[in-house]
Amino acid sequence: MDKNVVISTRIRLARNLKDYPFPCKLSEKGREEVNDKVRDALINGNSAIAKDFQYIDFENLTETMKVSLVEKHLVSPEFISNTSGRALLLLNDGTVGIMLNEEDHIRLQVIEKGFCLDKAYDLADKIDTLLDERLNFAFDSKLGYLTQCPTNLGTGMRASVMLHLPALKKSGAMKMLTTNLGKLGLTIRGAYGEGSSSQGAVYQLSNQVSLGISEKSAIENLKNISEQIVAQEIKQRETLLKSIETKDTIMRSLGILKTAYIMTHREAVDLLSNVRFGICAGLIDNINIEDINDLMTEIQPATLMTIIGEALSPKDRDIKRAEYLRNKLN
Amino acid sequence: MDKNVVISTRIRLARNLKDYPFPCKLSEKGREEVNDKVRDALINGNSAIAKDFQYIDFENLTETMKVSLVEKHLVSPEFISNTSGRALLLLNDGTVGIMLNEEDHIRLQVIEKGFCLDKAYDLADKIDTLLDERLNFAFDSKLGYLTQCPTNLGTGMRASVMLHLPALKKSGAMKMLTTNLGKLGLTIRGAYGEGSSSQGAVYQLSNQVSLGISEKSAIENLKNISEQIVAQEIKQRETLLKSIETKDTIMRSLGILKTAYIMTHREAVDLLSNVRFGICAGLIDNINIEDINDLMTEIQPATLMTIIGEALSPKDRDIKRAEYLRNKLN
Repeated sequence: MDKNVVISTRIRLARNLKDYPFPCKLSEKGREEVNDKVRDALINGNSAIAKDFQYIDFENLTETMKVSLVEKHLVSPEFISNTSGRALLLLNDGTVGIMLNEEDHIRLQVIEKGFCLDKAYDLADKIDTLLDERLNFAFDSKLGYLTQCPTNLGTGMRASVMLHLPALKKSGAMKMLTTNLGKLGLTIRGAYGEGSSSQGAVYQLSNQVSLGISEKSAIENLKNISEQIVAQEIKQRETLLKSIETKDTIMRSLGILKTAYIMTHREAVDLLSNVRFGICAGLIDNINIEDINDLMTEIQPATLMTIIGEALSPKDRDIKRAEYLRNKLN
Repeated sequence: MDKNVVISTRIRLARNLKDYPFPCKLSEKGREEVNDKVRDALINGNSAIAKDFQYIDFENLTETMKVSLVEKHLVSPEFISNTSGRALLLLNDGTVGIMLNEEDHIRLQVIEKGFCLDKAYDLADKIDTLLDERLNFAFDSKLGYLTQCPTNLGTGMRASVMLHLPALKKSGAMKMLTTNLGKLGLTIRGAYGEGSSSQGAVYQLSNQVSLGISEKSAIENLKNISEQIVAQEIKQRETLLKSIETKDTIMRSLGILKTAYIMTHREAVDLLSNVRFGICAGLIDNINIEDINDLMTEIQPATLMTIIGEALSPKDRDIKRAEYLRNKLN
């Protein structure tokens, strides 16, 4: 049942080079040196994976391409707000991104589909080890990895899972869940839309504690809590599905997605969320969950324009989004 | 293009028997006599059509059956509010209804599909002549046919057409149209829902003047004005259809009708109205306008229950309505 609730898994490691100040204090020239050193460490390392990375100088990207990388969670919104001296090492399949000179010198991210914290961590750890062999990381025997923001000290790790929680959202349970998770050293927030809104009922659950805890313990903790939330969500879905209104909402959502000629991102995410729930519930049997997960990513404004290959006005984008959804779902 | 706008035509004649007071002043026994006389006049008349009429004693009908007759415009809401001593002579195909002891002794109605004022009037006139041969109508050489309400004096005729005006409604032109029509001796009002609301953008346009004007002139006047409104509506539809939002609304409406599992009457009428517009505009080509006209009648609460053959709670009715629409449209 995991894949009905867990959309994807993410591991992020923060690292800094001992011989350079943090990026915010670093000169243009210093940033370039950091970029070069990390790139060379990766590409010249003893790993087959290195040849599948591309080095992307952010100063050469269009705004749309940059925003699309944010939409795919490969870089942070902060990263593209000022791209001077920043670069990205991106694995060709889009599962690994290494932001250079974001808040820290190195922000290594692994994103995997489904619920696979161990697998994602193993890959992150492997690349981290590869870099560590050729770079001198800022590390303190008491504090662990040193980072610009003290909340990242220690492991420098954030592990997170993207959860689809339509039933818990509908039931109003999210507020209490948010409060309770805080006490357990975890945080949950909306994955789409701004702030704590939860468009499409997609939430990101992550560990908040990186100091005084091992990576394995943090991951184990996140895994256990995720499993409990998954169980709660599944139970709540069963309750919801007893009402005809739920089936009505789900089936109408698919009907609208298949027929609309203009659709905002917000509406599309909410309708796709309903359809995703419907597939998991067995009400819709000719569409895969994975296709809906992909659509949720693809119909975001900048990603959609990247796929179509045109810059579009907001209205034209809404028209193309509806067309894209009709074509994929009919 | 008429049938894209004109749904149906109706002629109503009010008649009273000379030897009896108006129904409101008539005893129970007197009403029974009137019922019997009119029934016998029709059934014993020299017309083949007589054998296709059934005599319905309203005191024997269920509430659902009575309301369904109102929904089909075969009887008035007033007629079923107190059915004591009232009866209906109904032609088997549902195109002619003769209310006995409503406001007047006889309220003869002919309802035809499409725009056919002459044809409907000819049939009404034929039945009126048939009754006149055997009954003594209250008639004054100056005032014409005598009726309880002075607004019906003269011809005793109301001629009306049911118009589908989604574009004029959307454009906000209805208010001015209503005002202008009043000056021309016509009235226009919403055909579904209460008062002047216009659910489904269906309006009833009728003549208001029955005194000092012949039936032919009144019909000619209504015909001319109808044609002008049809032309305005068609022109306004062309303007509306230039926007993608119109196509979006139409296609979504069909998508929802095909997929919903619970639907109120109000929503169904509005969505069917949009689909009807879409068929006329050539956006939907596998559904007939006539089928949509029928659905607009069939999905009304009491008519739906009559078709299904069950009394239903409002919620169950909304569920059955959605099912009925899915079955008819998929």
